Amino acid sequence: MALPHAESGQIIDISPLGSRLRATVSTALFKAEDLEVMRLVLLAGKGIPPHRVAGEVTIQCIEGVVEVSSQQVRTLDAGKMLYLRGDEVHSLRALEDASVLLTIFLDRRSGKLQGGVSAGISAGLASP
Amino acid sequence: MALPHAESGQIIDISPLGSRLRATVSTALFKAEDLEVMRLVLLAGKGIPPHRVAGEVTIQCIEGVVEVSSQQVRTLDAGKMLYLRGDEVHSLRALEDASVLLTIFLDRRSGKLQGGVSAGISAGLASP
Repeated sequence: MALPHAESGQIIDISPLGSRLRATVSTALFKAEDLEVMRLVLLAGKGIPPHRVAGEVTIQCIEGVVEVSSQQVRTLDAGKMLYLRGDEVHSLRALEDASVLLTIFLDRRSGKLQGGVSAGISAGLASP
Repeated sequence: MALPHAESGQIIDISPLGSRLRATVSTALFKAEDLEVMRLVLLAGKGIPPHRVAGEVTIQCIEGVVEVSSQQVRTLDAGKMLYLRGDEVHSLRALEDASVLLTIFLDRRSGKLQGGVSAGISAGLASP
């Protein structure tokens, strides 16, 4: 998380990490007023425990394979994405080493979020 | 635009189109309460004339090369993205046949948008 966040108009590289994946940590790429984009790096078998965010999210698999469990269980490989309604409990688990782009609408109307997404996901990453 | 929009949790394929690109039209992949995601297909030399949307947007190049002009001119190839603040005038132009993922925050606070994004972009696509 040591990288500075991107500014409006700045180019961000979200290419597959390939051989660098295992040496790369999850990063908040930017956090603007209404949107936050994170690249999660999940090693096979690791994941994010069940959680919810107030706003809608998109989950895009850049490489590897990741399982997204909400009301249903979906498996995303490279080039696949889905979105989830706000407040929908979901979890992630990598079936193969994966990098995943999360785009989160920072729904401030509810008063629930206010910057807790990155912290919550980071906490999740620390546990197996 | 004849495809039905994806529902929450439904898998969406945004893989590079490759040889199918020239036979594929731009599509609104889904439009939820706060986020809209579109895949633009831009043939080399074509683009979207200058416009603005109320909310923040991310522009991700899936394949090909696209030039994004706002306060600065940026060139995105596959695996590169950027975001733009809301209300920032910008235009797109493909330098090579490209597919581009747009994620748009539907900022309804301003009362300016209300579904005009797809229509505006479709209108833009129709012109050279």
